[in-house]
Amino acid sequence: MRLATSRDGSRDGRLLVIRRDGEAALDAGHVARSLQDALDRWEEVVPSLRALSATLDAGDVDGVPLDPAALAAPLPRAYEWVDGSAFLHHVRLVRRARGAEPPADLGDVPLLYQGGSGVLLGPTDDVPLPDPAMGLDFEGEVCCILGDVPAGARAAGSAPHVRLLCLANDLTFRNLVPAELARGFGFFQSKPATSFSPFALTPDELGPAWRDGRVHLPLTVRWNGRVVGTADAGAMHFSFFQLLEHAARTRAFTAGTILGSGTVSSEDPGAGWSCIAEARALEMIESGRAQTRFLAAGDTVEIEMRDGQGRDLFGRISQRVVAAGEGS
Amino acid sequence: MRLATSRDGSRDGRLLVIRRDGEAALDAGHVARSLQDALDRWEEVVPSLRALSATLDAGDVDGVPLDPAALAAPLPRAYEWVDGSAFLHHVRLVRRARGAEPPADLGDVPLLYQGGSGVLLGPTDDVPLPDPAMGLDFEGEVCCILGDVPAGARAAGSAPHVRLLCLANDLTFRNLVPAELARGFGFFQSKPATSFSPFALTPDELGPAWRDGRVHLPLTVRWNGRVVGTADAGAMHFSFFQLLEHAARTRAFTAGTILGSGTVSSEDPGAGWSCIAEARALEMIESGRAQTRFLAAGDTVEIEMRDGQGRDLFGRISQRVVAAGEGS
Repeated sequence: MRLATSRDGSRDGRLLVIRRDGEAALDAGHVARSLQDALDRWEEVVPSLRALSATLDAGDVDGVPLDPAALAAPLPRAYEWVDGSAFLHHVRLVRRARGAEPPADLGDVPLLYQGGSGVLLGPTDDVPLPDPAMGLDFEGEVCCILGDVPAGARAAGSAPHVRLLCLANDLTFRNLVPAELARGFGFFQSKPATSFSPFALTPDELGPAWRDGRVHLPLTVRWNGRVVGTADAGAMHFSFFQLLEHAARTRAFTAGTILGSGTVSSEDPGAGWSCIAEARALEMIESGRAQTRFLAAGDTVEIEMRDGQGRDLFGRISQRVVAAGEGS
Repeated sequence: MRLATSRDGSRDGRLLVIRRDGEAALDAGHVARSLQDALDRWEEVVPSLRALSATLDAGDVDGVPLDPAALAAPLPRAYEWVDGSAFLHHVRLVRRARGAEPPADLGDVPLLYQGGSGVLLGPTDDVPLPDPAMGLDFEGEVCCILGDVPAGARAAGSAPHVRLLCLANDLTFRNLVPAELARGFGFFQSKPATSFSPFALTPDELGPAWRDGRVHLPLTVRWNGRVVGTADAGAMHFSFFQLLEHAARTRAFTAGTILGSGTVSSEDPGAGWSCIAEARALEMIESGRAQTRFLAAGDTVEIEMRDGQGRDLFGRISQRVVAAGEGS
């Protein structure tokens, strides 16, 4: 089952069920007024949502043609956005390029940070760039949307906590990162609002590509129309279940918490990169000088994932960078 | 006007208006079903809520006797919990004791971290302690609950963004902090769910004690019944308005975001301390050895603030620490 959120002027938008071909949608607001509402009452509403989805796929109803520009993030505001950094190649590469050591326990203890979650961008929303000197970068990621997770939850047995999967563009102001991390309190200004894919999928939609708490499919990232990354999202060192166990060690999470993989990253040079920082890090290491520039006003970024049959699973994140005066 | 949230089995609880003496409440669920709902439609609902408050204070209705144990946090789940560290004395003392340097720009750039906000504790909720070796500590703080804040908001003119004020007990596992901060991604496991005061107040309730984006009143902290802190919350180096400007530099915030002051802290030794870490830091500096222990199962922590006339403004955070097996 694939779900989405249409903008209807409300803060949480309206819940849609998406047809298998991604071309049409059925309003599900009578079952749950928003995706958050559905997540709050998941066991109760899932049978009705699945029935709507089956009706739509069977052609028993037409649905309405889907307009990607009318979609918000699946959760336009979420209670938590917890982002991991589970692709160790990315951590090693980016830290090496800025002369910082990766933590000694990098392979044993997951890295997670708490992101801002009150304002999340939709898949076709413009990305505001207050100042090109901030070094705006994209980051292609895979995310879980969780149900209620008790404190002390373990990786083993946590599969039922994963209600939905989606993609994210975890935008980052690279040039604000070193100073913020040096101050010890983690990212803040360096992480503007994150963008999410049009659709959120129940894990069964991925078939065998969802296993071991990982999505075993390549993530396609395009910058100004050119494919720059096709890295395998299944190469996560820590699975989503392990990230969840780490996150839940000392507290519980409410339904609708979004848990991210961190930048999808591959040691295979042929797979390219899912963020500019990696391209620059490789250049730094090879030639001592980063040459690839960061995002500029007018640039476009597209992120999508297709299954083995070429089916577009999550819909496409397709954003344009726009100049935004600081303080305007 | 003072607002609170009663537990009614729902995720967000039910909105109450509190009588001036704090002894009775009036259900406001017909105006807004929850505090979040009220914050979402603030301009629209405030006149009705103020009318209910006036009716209750005038004795035109009796209200129902207030049971503090029936109260949840004003926002049992919030979209963001952004916590500052605006009392520089606290930062200097705690870092000095653990041999870490405060940032060189400590007095110029606010320290803020993104806290977990999906599960927040009520004022009388037990505090789970999975392992005494984690070094559980309390932190008495003052908080704002914000309305919608646009990206790029400035300190000047931001007073209207402050909808409500409340208190917090920002619980911290001190012994998990050094390793987490060393890894660069900020606090995560070291910050379990934060607890909040019974009441959230519109700023006018504080009269002249609310000025310059600060609450100019002492915060009283008791540990096992003994007053350990009476520091002036007005001694914030950065005002809430300055914290807000820093937070909003690269993104917007949705209504219901909670913005914290950080541990209220005073250079005056007679004012004591609002967290155990400060007591231990002073001992370390004076004698080379921290002697005051962290929280243990059975301990109680109380946090409250009274005005010049002795009126209890926010109600009392009154919590007991209970053993909780890790993974249980």
